[in-house]
Amino acid sequence: MAFGRFQDFLSGLVSRQRGLFFSSSEAASIEELVEKLMGTVGEVSGIVTARQVLDHYADLDSEGKRAFFASLESDFNADSEQVRAAYQAYELEPSSNNLNRLSIATVPRRDELLKRLNQTPGATHDLVAMRTDLLGLLPENPELAAVDEDFLRLFLSWFGRSFLVLQTINWSTSAAILERIIRYEAVHEIKDWDDLRSRIDPPNRRCFAFFHPALVDEPLIFVEVALSTEIPSTIRSILAGEGAEVIDPGEYRVATFYSISNCQPGLRSVSFGNFLIKQVVQELQSEFPAINTFITLSPIPGFTRWLHREGSEESADLEALRNAVSQVESSEEAVTAQADDVKRAVFNYLFHSKRGQFPSDPVARFHLGNGASVHQLHIAADLSEKGMNQSMGTMVNYLYDLRNIEVNHEAYATEGKIVFNDKLKSLLIK
Amino acid sequence: MAFGRFQDFLSGLVSRQRGLFFSSSEAASIEELVEKLMGTVGEVSGIVTARQVLDHYADLDSEGKRAFFASLESDFNADSEQVRAAYQAYELEPSSNNLNRLSIATVPRRDELLKRLNQTPGATHDLVAMRTDLLGLLPENPELAAVDEDFLRLFLSWFGRSFLVLQTINWSTSAAILERIIRYEAVHEIKDWDDLRSRIDPPNRRCFAFFHPALVDEPLIFVEVALSTEIPSTIRSILAGEGAEVIDPGEYRVATFYSISNCQPGLRSVSFGNFLIKQVVQELQSEFPAINTFITLSPIPGFTRWLHREGSEESADLEALRNAVSQVESSEEAVTAQADDVKRAVFNYLFHSKRGQFPSDPVARFHLGNGASVHQLHIAADLSEKGMNQSMGTMVNYLYDLRNIEVNHEAYATEGKIVFNDKLKSLLIK
Amino acid sequence: MAFGRFQDFLSGLVSRQRGLFFSSSEAASIEELVEKLMGTVGEVSGIVTARQVLDHYADLDSEGKRAFFASLESDFNADSEQVRAAYQAYELEPSSNNLNRLSIATVPRRDELLKRLNQTPGATHDLVAMRTDLLGLLPENPELAAVDEDFLRLFLSWFGRSFLVLQTINWSTSAAILERIIRYEAVHEIKDWDDLRSRIDPPNRRCFAFFHPALVDEPLIFVEVALSTEIPSTIRSILAGEGAEVIDPGEYRVATFYSISNCQPGLRSVSFGNFLIKQVVQELQSEFPAINTFITLSPIPGFTRWLHREGSEESADLEALRNAVSQVESSEEAVTAQADDVKRAVFNYLFHSKRGQFPSDPVARFHLGNGASVHQLHIAADLSEKGMNQSMGTMVNYLYDLRNIEVNHEAYATEGKIVFNDKLKSLLIK
Amino acid sequence: MAFGRFQDFLSGLVSRQRGLFFSSSEAASIEELVEKLMGTVGEVSGIVTARQVLDHYADLDSEGKRAFFASLESDFNADSEQVRAAYQAYELEPSSNNLNRLSIATVPRRDELLKRLNQTPGATHDLVAMRTDLLGLLPENPELAAVDEDFLRLFLSWFGRSFLVLQTINWSTSAAILERIIRYEAVHEIKDWDDLRSRIDPPNRRCFAFFHPALVDEPLIFVEVALSTEIPSTIRSILAGEGAEVIDPGEYRVATFYSISNCQPGLRSVSFGNFLIKQVVQELQSEFPAINTFITLSPIPGFTRWLHREGSEESADLEALRNAVSQVESSEEAVTAQADDVKRAVFNYLFHSKRGQFPSDPVARFHLGNGASVHQLHIAADLSEKGMNQSMGTMVNYLYDLRNIEVNHEAYATEGKIVFNDKLKSLLIK
Repeated sequence: MAFGRFQDFLSGLVSRQRGLFFSSSEAASIEELVEKLMGTVGEVSGIVTARQVLDHYADLDSEGKRAFFASLESDFNADSEQVRAAYQAYELEPSSNNLNRLSIATVPRRDELLKRLNQTPGATHDLVAMRTDLLGLLPENPELAAVDEDFLRLFLSWFGRSFLVLQTINWSTSAAILERIIRYEAVHEIKDWDDLRSRIDPPNRRCFAFFHPALVDEPLIFVEVALSTEIPSTIRSILAGEGAEVIDPGEYRVATFYSISNCQPGLRSVSFGNFLIKQVVQELQSEFPAINTFITLSPIPGFTRWLHREGSEESADLEALRNAVSQVESSEEAVTAQADDVKRAVFNYLFHSKRGQFPSDPVARFHLGNGASVHQLHIAADLSEKGMNQSMGTMVNYLYDLRNIEVNHEAYATEGKIVFNDKLKSLLIK
Repeated sequence: MAFGRFQDFLSGLVSRQRGLFFSSSEAASIEELVEKLMGTVGEVSGIVTARQVLDHYADLDSEGKRAFFASLESDFNADSEQVRAAYQAYELEPSSNNLNRLSIATVPRRDELLKRLNQTPGATHDLVAMRTDLLGLLPENPELAAVDEDFLRLFLSWFGRSFLVLQTINWSTSAAILERIIRYEAVHEIKDWDDLRSRIDPPNRRCFAFFHPALVDEPLIFVEVALSTEIPSTIRSILAGEGAEVIDPGEYRVATFYSISNCQPGLRSVSFGNFLIKQVVQELQSEFPAINTFITLSPIPGFTRWLHREGSEESADLEALRNAVSQVESSEEAVTAQADDVKRAVFNYLFHSKRGQFPSDPVARFHLGNGASVHQLHIAADLSEKGMNQSMGTMVNYLYDLRNIEVNHEAYATEGKIVFNDKLKSLLIK
Repeated sequence: MAFGRFQDFLSGLVSRQRGLFFSSSEAASIEELVEKLMGTVGEVSGIVTARQVLDHYADLDSEGKRAFFASLESDFNADSEQVRAAYQAYELEPSSNNLNRLSIATVPRRDELLKRLNQTPGATHDLVAMRTDLLGLLPENPELAAVDEDFLRLFLSWFGRSFLVLQTINWSTSAAILERIIRYEAVHEIKDWDDLRSRIDPPNRRCFAFFHPALVDEPLIFVEVALSTEIPSTIRSILAGEGAEVIDPGEYRVATFYSISNCQPGLRSVSFGNFLIKQVVQELQSEFPAINTFITLSPIPGFTRWLHREGSEESADLEALRNAVSQVESSEEAVTAQADDVKRAVFNYLFHSKRGQFPSDPVARFHLGNGASVHQLHIAADLSEKGMNQSMGTMVNYLYDLRNIEVNHEAYATEGKIVFNDKLKSLLIK
Repeated sequence: MAFGRFQDFLSGLVSRQRGLFFSSSEAASIEELVEKLMGTVGEVSGIVTARQVLDHYADLDSEGKRAFFASLESDFNADSEQVRAAYQAYELEPSSNNLNRLSIATVPRRDELLKRLNQTPGATHDLVAMRTDLLGLLPENPELAAVDEDFLRLFLSWFGRSFLVLQTINWSTSAAILERIIRYEAVHEIKDWDDLRSRIDPPNRRCFAFFHPALVDEPLIFVEVALSTEIPSTIRSILAGEGAEVIDPGEYRVATFYSISNCQPGLRSVSFGNFLIKQVVQELQSEFPAINTFITLSPIPGFTRWLHREGSEESADLEALRNAVSQVESSEEAVTAQADDVKRAVFNYLFHSKRGQFPSDPVARFHLGNGASVHQLHIAADLSEKGMNQSMGTMVNYLYDLRNIEVNHEAYATEGKIVFNDKLKSLLIK
């Protein structure tokens, strides 16, 4: 809520300043405006020009945007003469000072441009949106990767952990923020305001988000949590709001992170999720000292793709299992009837299907990379179309045990080691 | 006040996290800790290690700190092999991509170290304090300038304008902040809480400060403003609280910025004052549409030093004036008796005494650089010991006229042109 | 938003206290609990008992509630012996002191009971709900009027103007409050969250509500306002969100109060609307100095009832007009075709149809009683079913002119005088 | 802090409304204004007139105020004819309805006057100040007691428990509130802002206050608390800030209420202290679950007065003890040398010196009346002049044990029973 006032303040500032400054002619092209911004000496006119550049940019069509980024790529590099001179000085005498000179000489001019754009109120919003556009253009225009790198470098500095604010999302949160929660939920769609309420208002539900002071009303990432006495075995029971009857809060033992959504495509590769989960674990422990199990209830997005792909690099046993399970019909009854085989297939998928030394499943990679372990598998846990298609309805609990996450993380990061619950051991095909 | 809650939140987080994490052994040396931090893969242990480095640093004595910075200078540069390789690739093909590779290769490792330190809650405080120490060591250890440059580069990115929050300081502000206002006032000392109250509580006084979300309760810079019907001619009348009798707020015509204090020595060269004054002008205009004059009442810190210095590069007329005025006794009566000569001397000092193309007087340089103009001079305006010593009690109004500041700024920045009130023209010695 | 924190605090308190205290046996009947509460000496047990009474009450069925109120009526009067003794002392010596003794002696014991109930956190909510029940029982149980009077006396004291908080309702308001705005809108139904947003979020819309510190998250009354350059002539254009295109806020000239809803049936006869409108006028004047017209766009709920009723006390001309208009078909075309007659009929209805010396139309009575005047009539302004049924689609602007409302109010309150716009004069049938 | 915004809102409202309305002539006498207010029908003019009455009142000299209250006493009673008529109706038929009529008829007109005065923003402040004046006049003007009773009746209704807000006071609290804490501290004087800080800022200190929404920035009552591992035995050690070194908050076992101050003399007999202590106990329990002892460290203001008074109603043993102790010199050494006798004398003073069935010592009466018990006595615990004079430096711990306070309270309230620690039993003289 404090945040709300800060946002109000910023919003007011933006509109007031727009009001004050927007008499200037707006007929210039974006190139002229950018040139003016890079050459500007006056600070107030710099702020106005930055706003004009951003507004012009927003009005460009797709080809205009591509041309703008192309110009950033080709026309806003460092001065190669200065780079050479700085390098020669450094080679002659590789002092700290000469290194710094070289380091400064090599920073592309677009870095300065982005910083100048960010001087105008509200600019961070525009720049994140700008990178969203850029990311969309990258596949077709791989030469723009250098531009994207400069965006990312700046964003990593601006969105450092010290500047993030954790905020509880509940029924007292402003509609402006809640509306975005509905819109940004990426795992289990929120259908409407009633559905939203069932996820954030009941006493056994919690929701937390990270915000940044310069991104007004914009959650960066949020996580939805269900509190219960037992580990839940289906997502349906959570989404249906089971367990919401009032029990003594002291009786909760399990906190389940059942949905984590990144909100800002323009902040791709600025990772927030690992911070978020760990900070939320601490918040919940302080509110509910009796909760002793922090787990996820996660989808397994790559399972059926793996099941049905061609190729046979695994062991013969695994190959056989994969073939058997790929014949199972994708229905609750069929899967339940073959529960043992499906479980074994899923577990060995998580364990053996790799990209490099890490699991190929993106959700597994995220949680195991955070230091979580594979805790339990649930058959017929997500009967939605998406759930059946991705993983034949199977879901997995990843366990966050604060005592072990550092050790787990280190073993995972250095050797790709996947820690799992002893009870799952018998499922493993060597 | 919103800010207050955000600060509470952060404080709570810091202490909670310290509480959670501080079981680890703290016997390691700072070098070992830094090494651990740079090599760390686990995020939580990274946060703990960063906090340990910062706490160890704070306990070092002066020599220990010097050694720490010396190690940053000598041991945390970029890998020269990587720099060379990156440069050669760039020279072969000066693409954007190769430039980015080179740019990244040349960033000193201390940059990464500072960023990792800043992951721990509250670290920004520590890093600003660290640079304060560093700045104190620089004169004797000029080789540390490269380290300081890296601090400054990071701070410029973190303390960009978009991340600053303007806050009104008044009698409803928290004691935690007000206490710092008392401590940080650098121009006209605040003697005690009653004195403070007389500057921020009366209806004809305002005070504004910039804050940054990561520097809890710490003003970065603040300005004190007196509202009145006429331009005040002495600082004494302002400090004595004259004009505080209640008049209709609609009758104020003048806002006088009579004190601007930078609060954070560790943020030297991260300039806030220019933003602050302009934003405050807008705030005041919105609250008091009838105010049409925004001026300072400023000291002239370099006048008597100039008056009494040796050398004679000026015109004969100015030389003669300087000699004459340097004989005037530094008392209210004497100065008042010679008011015309003193005024002429002061004005020509502001106009002719230069460092490069800009005025040598630091206060003049600040306001003229912001686009203000020299508006009026006041004899016997500051009879305090400091005031008499610096400028024989003379003070100056710099005028902030929003319609002209951009033009003034541009003329000043490009040609060193000083704009002044026509009425002062007759004082000028060509 | 400030209010939000206060509400959080109170909510927390309630649940914490319930948690602390609710070990006590809850098997007693409500009569026993009430008796215990009236006889209790310990304060903490008083608070627990009060909560138990309120919870028991909430669980009663309709007959149980009636019996409870009946018991309040018959068993909780003052002690008639004490009343007699106090009266005799007063008659012997009618001193201030003896009057006070008598005044205290005559206060019914249910007044003390209600005050004791209100000591428990959250009780004000329960008591307002209790009176809602009571009001529903009154028509069938007129003897309970005395009980209702005591509720009302207390509520008038608790909900005095000094204790009301005006709050802006917008898209940054908490969902908990907005949800109630949707539910409580009584004039022009709010269909869903999108509809709500169209009423409170656009730059040309405002919404204000009164709150009371003890009624957490509960608006007491709210008003919806549309800003525009001209007086709007149909409610449809407002509800359709016309005029929401961004114009310079300085161009608004008219603020239209198009919907005022009382939210708490349990606070009937505690009047908030008159305060609200006047305070909102001041808020808007301070934000938009150029707005010079504050009007309503109001329904005329009693018009067609009057048109079709039997009886003929009016003048022959009015009778003739009434007969003519009562033949007009209730369709946009027909009404528009007969616009002059319909207007005349409506105006004379407002002017001549009386209850006592005041207009019989409840909306007219409200605004004219506040000191507003009849400003303009609009044909086919509300084509909704409700609007056509009530007033053949006609609506009226009542004008709030701060310079005149006191004079208007006084003339209305003392002589029943209705002030109207000169332009309407020709419509009047003497 | 939430409260702060509400205060800002109200302040703004007051000044805005004063600005809007204060064109009216202010030359009328207070009698004329009061008459106007009682006769007024327009609401806005009522608000203006109320403000004028309050401002006129504030300008009256002491005799003017007395005359004003005298007029309230004599001229603002109920209409005796109406009282008589209502009584006769009631006597004929003592129905609930007739009782209500009588009850309303007997309310003095000054009650209505006070309510009307309270409609103007900020009026509650003025009315509390008005009663402060009245209480000062009462001893010399006992006939005004009836007026005071009416003030008190209203204040009891307005300042009911449901409307009080508990707020933490710490170094983040606004200076406007802290300044009043300094001013209002009644038990152990706060010398300056540093002294204040030592009481509210260290991690082992807490301070809580009650506020009311209509009394902006004005604490009603506050309590200062010291947290420690052992029960403190001297007030000096608390005031000197001992125990402020950082220890793990989980190690605190004792919370000592060492100072409770009522802030508003105008709210005399509206009791807040009992609520405050119990609510603070709950707050502290929730923050520090390991704290198991909630005690006071209290002065014994009546001890030496009792010791030296004439008369001998006690038992011979007590008489002898009293004589012996009254000879002890009032110095730390002497008292310490005679510690046993002094302790016995103090304990028997608390136990045997009565006013009616309750202890004559006012502090004992307050805490025992709240359900606390006498827990421990400390010799030479308060060596200040005041402490030595009042009680030869002796202090007492009253224990608040939530499990027993209700039982204790009931035994005390009905039989005057004083509960004490078994260890003190041997001190008791039957």
